[in-house]
Amino acid sequence: MLNLPFKHPLEQISAAEIDVARECVLQARQTAIIFRNIYNIEPPKSQLIKFLEEEHAGTLSAKTQPPDRLACVQYDVISQDRNLYYMESTVHLATGKELNTRKLGNKQRHSFTVDEFQEFIDACILSPEFQQAVKKLELPKGFEEIAIDPWPFGGPDADDKDSRLTQLFCFARDKNKQNEDANHYAYPLPICVVMDTNKKTVVRVERLPTGGILDGLLPGKESLTKPTEHCNAAEYAPELLDAPVRQDFKPLNVTQPKGASFSERNGLVEWQKWRFRISFTPRECAVLHDIHYDGRSVFHRLSFSELTVPYADPRAPYHRKHAFDFGDAGAGRTANNLALGCDCLGAVRYIDAMLVSPEGKPDVSKNVVCIHEQDDGILWKHTNLITGRAVVVRNRKLIIQYIITLGNYEYIFAYHFDLAGGISVETRPTGIMSPVSIEENKFSNYGNVVGKGILAQNHQHIFAVRIDPAIDGHNNTVVTQDSIQIPMNPDTNPYGNAYEVRTTTVETSTHIDASPFTNRVIKITNPSVKNTTSGNSVAYKFTPSPSQLLLADPSSLAASRAKFATHHVWVTKHKDYEFWAGGEFTNQAEVERGGCFDAAARNDGIQNTDLVVWAVFGFTHNPRVEDWPVMPVEKHELHFTPADFFDANPALDVPSQRNSSSVLVGGEVSLNVCSHDNDKFFST
Amino acid sequence: MLNLPFKHPLEQISAAEIDVARECVLQARQTAIIFRNIYNIEPPKSQLIKFLEEEHAGTLSAKTQPPDRLACVQYDVISQDRNLYYMESTVHLATGKELNTRKLGNKQRHSFTVDEFQEFIDACILSPEFQQAVKKLELPKGFEEIAIDPWPFGGPDADDKDSRLTQLFCFARDKNKQNEDANHYAYPLPICVVMDTNKKTVVRVERLPTGGILDGLLPGKESLTKPTEHCNAAEYAPELLDAPVRQDFKPLNVTQPKGASFSERNGLVEWQKWRFRISFTPRECAVLHDIHYDGRSVFHRLSFSELTVPYADPRAPYHRKHAFDFGDAGAGRTANNLALGCDCLGAVRYIDAMLVSPEGKPDVSKNVVCIHEQDDGILWKHTNLITGRAVVVRNRKLIIQYIITLGNYEYIFAYHFDLAGGISVETRPTGIMSPVSIEENKFSNYGNVVGKGILAQNHQHIFAVRIDPAIDGHNNTVVTQDSIQIPMNPDTNPYGNAYEVRTTTVETSTHIDASPFTNRVIKITNPSVKNTTSGNSVAYKFTPSPSQLLLADPSSLAASRAKFATHHVWVTKHKDYEFWAGGEFTNQAEVERGGCFDAAARNDGIQNTDLVVWAVFGFTHNPRVEDWPVMPVEKHELHFTPADFFDANPALDVPSQRNSSSVLVGGEVSLNVCSHDNDKFFST
Repeated sequence: MLNLPFKHPLEQISAAEIDVARECVLQARQTAIIFRNIYNIEPPKSQLIKFLEEEHAGTLSAKTQPPDRLACVQYDVISQDRNLYYMESTVHLATGKELNTRKLGNKQRHSFTVDEFQEFIDACILSPEFQQAVKKLELPKGFEEIAIDPWPFGGPDADDKDSRLTQLFCFARDKNKQNEDANHYAYPLPICVVMDTNKKTVVRVERLPTGGILDGLLPGKESLTKPTEHCNAAEYAPELLDAPVRQDFKPLNVTQPKGASFSERNGLVEWQKWRFRISFTPRECAVLHDIHYDGRSVFHRLSFSELTVPYADPRAPYHRKHAFDFGDAGAGRTANNLALGCDCLGAVRYIDAMLVSPEGKPDVSKNVVCIHEQDDGILWKHTNLITGRAVVVRNRKLIIQYIITLGNYEYIFAYHFDLAGGISVETRPTGIMSPVSIEENKFSNYGNVVGKGILAQNHQHIFAVRIDPAIDGHNNTVVTQDSIQIPMNPDTNPYGNAYEVRTTTVETSTHIDASPFTNRVIKITNPSVKNTTSGNSVAYKFTPSPSQLLLADPSSLAASRAKFATHHVWVTKHKDYEFWAGGEFTNQAEVERGGCFDAAARNDGIQNTDLVVWAVFGFTHNPRVEDWPVMPVEKHELHFTPADFFDANPALDVPSQRNSSSVLVGGEVSLNVCSHDNDKFFST
Repeated sequence: MLNLPFKHPLEQISAAEIDVARECVLQARQTAIIFRNIYNIEPPKSQLIKFLEEEHAGTLSAKTQPPDRLACVQYDVISQDRNLYYMESTVHLATGKELNTRKLGNKQRHSFTVDEFQEFIDACILSPEFQQAVKKLELPKGFEEIAIDPWPFGGPDADDKDSRLTQLFCFARDKNKQNEDANHYAYPLPICVVMDTNKKTVVRVERLPTGGILDGLLPGKESLTKPTEHCNAAEYAPELLDAPVRQDFKPLNVTQPKGASFSERNGLVEWQKWRFRISFTPRECAVLHDIHYDGRSVFHRLSFSELTVPYADPRAPYHRKHAFDFGDAGAGRTANNLALGCDCLGAVRYIDAMLVSPEGKPDVSKNVVCIHEQDDGILWKHTNLITGRAVVVRNRKLIIQYIITLGNYEYIFAYHFDLAGGISVETRPTGIMSPVSIEENKFSNYGNVVGKGILAQNHQHIFAVRIDPAIDGHNNTVVTQDSIQIPMNPDTNPYGNAYEVRTTTVETSTHIDASPFTNRVIKITNPSVKNTTSGNSVAYKFTPSPSQLLLADPSSLAASRAKFATHHVWVTKHKDYEFWAGGEFTNQAEVERGGCFDAAARNDGIQNTDLVVWAVFGFTHNPRVEDWPVMPVEKHELHFTPADFFDANPALDVPSQRNSSSVLVGGEVSLNVCSHDNDKFFST
């Protein structure tokens, strides 16, 4: 690709391209515009595949006609009546022409932008309604400054389903500490400000319940005044801790004296027979494409698609705490600037993301994706008991990581590649739980009192991963395999030790649930390519996560909004731009539209064709005191492994190198630390 | 302990103590003896606790009366009729007196020793029955030398339930390669030698089925001659691979310039507020004791208790492939000598184990346990969106690891401690799958053809971990917590978003199954100690592994032998020396006796008392071609976390240090890689 006169279709939008797209839209609309996103649109799959096939064949040349580079421009048009209209334009970047426009309907609400959040906060602070409500709280000296977290409204407003609202949760900042990083989440205030997101005006200030709930919802005496008085500081910044940080924690360094084993250039990553591209979108952050191993296609596209977080406190208005972090906010826009030696160790490569300012100007977000290698312990080992010879190969992972901050919470997302042909997706929620105020000596059945005056409500995190497979090509078939007990019988199971592995072909688009007690695995096969040894169709497989899914009552608003979150796996026929497990427009949506549920409901035939697999997994978070004030990560991993895709363990040729930097601890142990006769076999 | 005139009761037996024990038994028996094991017996729990309490109180002195150090001596007495009798003696080490003896019954068979395995092999090779059987195979030139794997017999012999047998599986060694490490498992032979383990005589040579089984068990033409002809080499030793190992895999070093953060002395380990002891037994290998965090008791004893591996090929005699790797062989005796920089990286400490030779002489097994630290990615992170300040703390684990080789398979076992008060147990099966011969173009419903002529039969690995908890003391109560959907209703769930967390107290000894779709967690609580913030009983919790358990028909021999493998959790009342999930004597056992099932069946009251929790998890292994010839590890982890045990996240005071050895990859990335304003907060 290096010397070709065009960009790769999956390469991020450039600053110059953003300028073209912005000017095109400004010209076309001739009115005041607030820009939300400008990003390049992935070509339709058929066009993209044609290009990628040429790329793999090595036939790209200056004469190649790549797919047109198109930009999606999302923006607000400010009308005469000060209302905002959400619009989108598709801009042909080579010509600067607007190809088409879309005006969103009343119930189609764009995700919020980070700039918009700040506008809500600023407008709130200036509003008399808010100032009056805060005054009534009688906050003590030094606690008068309020930190505000804008939240999506968790559904339409009951009174006006077309309204565009945000709800602002409020916390008192402890300014007595004279440290701007004093943790304001330790002082939740019992008010919620409802704001019109178009007009940036306060609709109402709601009182939040602060009593305990152990028997029904009957409130106790709920006080609105002096709500911080029974709270305690809960600091996490090291200089604010009561005692100094521990001193006996010695450094553990990862050094790579010969450099990294991977390369990355304009999104193309190569590492240990793996080859794939990283693209970036404002909604998904890092997306992986065209994943090949040793020249063979594995996945066409791999992405985190949605994350929904419903809270389980039944008291109004807490039922509105129900966010869709990708659709309501966007992982790409909220991704952290990652720090060398903190968020990743070793030899690290960073990728910047190209976002836009409200004026539509290029706005580089630095280091939002990091790439690095990590040791992962022993990958395989065998000791030949005849000779005593051990051969040990350690695993190494290539990790593509990004981290997002959404107010109080953070999520660490990562793609892992390993040396045995495996790919994993990993999530690690961390950060600060969303706390609400609770009176002294009150408790709740729907959450835990994790700090003084702090109720952390029970909630769930439900993730969706989108896998567009291409197992040795794009025509794939999904089968399930269950291992099933069979009764003892003289004909086929005379000793009762046998079990059946039952294979079921998924014929039409549908959902599948995890079934750990039958050891259910999902195999994505290519029925046209057989493994020459086993005779089976080549495949990649994964075990659907045996995790709890959405607990909300099926007839509830929460369940209507998050239909994808009710099954562990969805298998659907590929359709261009159907990327979103929870639908395109999640913000204040009343019902999931265009997500997994609708895609599966088409009842498409999906055998030996271009299909998409969606994997859903959940983490039911009933808070522990140990999750306060910042929670340790809860890891969840989904692991895709080859299943008769290769002719043998693909990691056989990984060097079984002794790592020469390791040292013995303590003088009492013999220096003869190798297995018998191992030394001569290890290269260093 | 350092200057006290006695050993710690949990300290391993010494060479001098072995000499005392051996001489005592030789004196007492006055006959020919073959020694199996000599190890120190853990004191009865009441005595041990009394000692440990003094140790923690700092009141141990030269005047302390520690529990008596006793040795268990397991040995065979050779009678006049050349039969072996299994015997055990308890020897009082200070006086050299034999306190008592036990002669095992006909159905109580000791685990095999490594020396004994070699005897079986040697006797087999010399036997005319074996030589004749091999001759009939018409092995080609260079393949005449046979490798033999002795296996436990998988139950009693149908004809003589008191007989003591082993079954020997046979493989041809490819000597043409002139490399002793050519993989003989690529050439399985269709014979199985049944041997009397007392007399070391061949009872019979059985023919193994080699046909395919797709419809019932009807054999095809099954040939006994030239069984290696259609097989192919399947090498894993680097110098035997067809192509050289990959050259682009650059070193990744773990260096600890200031040394390790842990210390170990005579089994006492201290690391980051954790303090515990490691002991060693021939059956369990490394056992952890008296685990404390910051002076508070967490677990009294933690061990891997059993591992059973039943195979699922219904054709006789393959139904006999059913091993209990701890009870039939022993993890301590089969543990590998671990190699620096291969099995562990960084600053590593090794522990040797004291075993005995058949003559009862001390026989040091070097480096069987390794201790080292490992980075584990981000433990917690939060970015304050007001200031842009991020605080990131990385996790580090302390790992205690051992690896066992049992013929073809290996298992990596590890205990992990983390910085957030968590303890994990991890298993990683690897090594070579047990292969059997299959004719060309034949396939099986009960296994996969993973190499030419190689059938890898479906099988399961089912592990049991024994947890003797001591959550802030020895009187604990187990509760289960399920998160359960509750119907929408105006009184308690008006919006349908709430769910119930239902707590159930386990009142009497019983089993509990995993229930991932209700998010079931097992909490080990101390009902007498309340968390001052939440009001809940302090606890540690774990999620029972939602994995498939024993598939064998409940009325089968396999199910009778492995009753523990039918439920995910057992909770029983503590009883001294009840350490074995599958019972004390598993070798050729017809029924599990004295294991989890029997312990639970006592129906003991177990509230607020000294109880034991057993966690069982399984890996149903339907082989992939990628598992051949050496399989990549399959990781399984069980994670114990504090649940309202602490007053806050216990890792708050872990330094958020920037690791100064990390470097950027590539010159195109800005050097400004830190989050806003982070620099001033990081110490290096």
